[in-house]
Amino acid sequence: MENSNSKILNINGGITAPKGFLASGISAGIKKNGNTDIALIFSDKPSSAAGIFTLNKVRGHSLDLCDKNLKDGNARCIFINSGNANACLGPSGLNDALLITEECAALLNIPATEVLTGSTGVIGHPLPMNNVLTGIKKAHSELKYTGGTDAAKAIMTTDTYIKEAAVSFELNSNTVTIGGMAKGSGMIHPNMATLIGVLTTDAKISAEFLKIILKNTADKSFNRISVDGDTSVCDKILILANGMSDASEIKPETDEAELFILALEIISIKLAKMIAADGEGATKLIEVNIKNAKSSDDAHKAAKAIANSPLVKTAFFGEDANWGRILTAVGYSGADFNPNTTTITIGPLLLFSKGLAIPFDENTAKNVLQKKDITVNVDFGTGTYDTTVWTCDLSHKYIDINANYRT
Amino acid sequence: MENSNSKILNINGGITAPKGFLASGISAGIKKNGNTDIALIFSDKPSSAAGIFTLNKVRGHSLDLCDKNLKDGNARCIFINSGNANACLGPSGLNDALLITEECAALLNIPATEVLTGSTGVIGHPLPMNNVLTGIKKAHSELKYTGGTDAAKAIMTTDTYIKEAAVSFELNSNTVTIGGMAKGSGMIHPNMATLIGVLTTDAKISAEFLKIILKNTADKSFNRISVDGDTSVCDKILILANGMSDASEIKPETDEAELFILALEIISIKLAKMIAADGEGATKLIEVNIKNAKSSDDAHKAAKAIANSPLVKTAFFGEDANWGRILTAVGYSGADFNPNTTTITIGPLLLFSKGLAIPFDENTAKNVLQKKDITVNVDFGTGTYDTTVWTCDLSHKYIDINANYRT
Repeated sequence: MENSNSKILNINGGITAPKGFLASGISAGIKKNGNTDIALIFSDKPSSAAGIFTLNKVRGHSLDLCDKNLKDGNARCIFINSGNANACLGPSGLNDALLITEECAALLNIPATEVLTGSTGVIGHPLPMNNVLTGIKKAHSELKYTGGTDAAKAIMTTDTYIKEAAVSFELNSNTVTIGGMAKGSGMIHPNMATLIGVLTTDAKISAEFLKIILKNTADKSFNRISVDGDTSVCDKILILANGMSDASEIKPETDEAELFILALEIISIKLAKMIAADGEGATKLIEVNIKNAKSSDDAHKAAKAIANSPLVKTAFFGEDANWGRILTAVGYSGADFNPNTTTITIGPLLLFSKGLAIPFDENTAKNVLQKKDITVNVDFGTGTYDTTVWTCDLSHKYIDINANYRT
Repeated sequence: MENSNSKILNINGGITAPKGFLASGISAGIKKNGNTDIALIFSDKPSSAAGIFTLNKVRGHSLDLCDKNLKDGNARCIFINSGNANACLGPSGLNDALLITEECAALLNIPATEVLTGSTGVIGHPLPMNNVLTGIKKAHSELKYTGGTDAAKAIMTTDTYIKEAAVSFELNSNTVTIGGMAKGSGMIHPNMATLIGVLTTDAKISAEFLKIILKNTADKSFNRISVDGDTSVCDKILILANGMSDASEIKPETDEAELFILALEIISIKLAKMIAADGEGATKLIEVNIKNAKSSDDAHKAAKAIANSPLVKTAFFGEDANWGRILTAVGYSGADFNPNTTTITIGPLLLFSKGLAIPFDENTAKNVLQKKDITVNVDFGTGTYDTTVWTCDLSHKYIDINANYRT
């Protein structure tokens, strides 16, 4: 299957699709239900590494250590557990994260500072370290070049399906591959305080350049999704580039860099949309496009207000063409806009134009709103700035999932 | 029954409790279910009037005309319909609002500019003006000095109970009374883009002074509640003061003014808490107190983030002591705070202290969380600024109400 850019191919698999990456996903008993809860990823060779982290002022201990270990731009191993956030535990939480890196490092014969840690789940409960350390041994023994899907499953919390993707492209007759996996699904919100995502590639690229590319890519993908407007304390995107492709090094401001960036955007947007579509209790993926705003900031504010509005999201769950709530959300978003130059469409349906409600056929509307993928366009008609945000509807199941998550 | 300030008495009734106010509430057929949908309020004498309005950039036509008619500080009549917002209809919407003021004025023999209009309900559908004009005649014919409760019922949309209150106090041996009514219940959010509230008093007071007092009072009451973070295009607080008490005029910076302000705050907080407790689908009233913040802005940001968080609100519905979500909300609120000096309590339960989770008994927690009134205290321990916000939990019923509101 081809992407819009015909040079970039979607391929099967996830984080182990690129050359030289092993992964595993095992059950260590951190989750009460027995589902897999430790993912381990290892690169055959030392890798350039970069990461971006939650903007939340409260940060998990595993995340803190990961951030520290990334400072030198080198890493070979990623450990992620689900079921426990390892947060708000004081010095013992950081110590647990350190023990994890030491255990991984000993088994893999690498420096502990080359292990990146991530934890996601409930806040304030100490990690069951006996289970974790035994689990790491098990995860190590199960590492394989086809373990990407197992790892993608092990990082899930309330996700209902595995999120992985991979793309490849030719650089001067050599294949470069990028793989990725991610987990949602509540607390998904623009600004990357939202999720765990891991990207791997066999491209050769410096950590400095990788960091810049990762930030720009996230701003067009992972930072444009919203489930409930909440953000979490443990969320991050990590990328490892092990240079095992035969293609030469990707340097800034080259055609090769342009292609790599495009490929990374394609895979990141694909993962981001999967996360939005699998928001807690979601039944629909909603794409919100703001068009012709006076500034980028105005476009973002408006898109975010629509995507975060419980009233808008509940109306989509009810398959109700309630454009009034969309307009109202823009009205309080703080965006500079004029209702009298604005039009609103849901799918092909024009509902509001330049200050006026447009009569529409309820049956046609019902047909449009029954779809699983819905596009909302809000055209301000006053500028040249556009933006897109992806979100989901708000359903009964969101309440079920979140009313009793901790217990 | 006495308030904390023993000089101010809670009394029965609402907007017709003060001297010289008549009201009615009738069914004009605007609402499909036949419930009453027009409220009319009339003062025997010309009154000082003030109002504050939604900050939403999209404003209803009835609200626009009301704002205009308030400019001179005089009004004698308030018309409010529920079931239709009279918004996004272009010139015909404003014209309908004008026709309403003219009809009321003709029946009451007052200038049309002394009629204040309000409309609340669905956006983008023209008011059924035949019904409205016939309804105004009926409402006029039913005006009475005990009609406050009828009016309070007629402004309800998804509210599940009538919201009215009244207080009285002595000013130099003369009784002054303040009455009030309000409607919620979704789209309730700090900054007064939230609700319709009407206050009446027989105090003698200038429109200029009344306006200042109303703004300050709203900032301590109606602007401190949040149901879902959304705000509406039609919402306002209005006050009429007809001077029919025998007490002398209340002037700024006097003991009398202080007492009046306190009484207005008491009734406004009472109405505001009723609105929060009757948020769409709400089963609990939650008071969020931020204490010892570095600035008023930090306290407000944090309180608002907690009160608007769907994850926090859903946890309260599930009676789950999920302090991690409270801390997380503060973390992304933008408030300047340090988790390592912060404590969190829910009711009497200490759950988080200075960076650390505090073990607690789940049964005790269940008992605390089963209550209908719950207080959350978040003490930043770094400053001297406090604030309070009232909100409600997020339940299945919110989804039911909002999935099919329009149709």
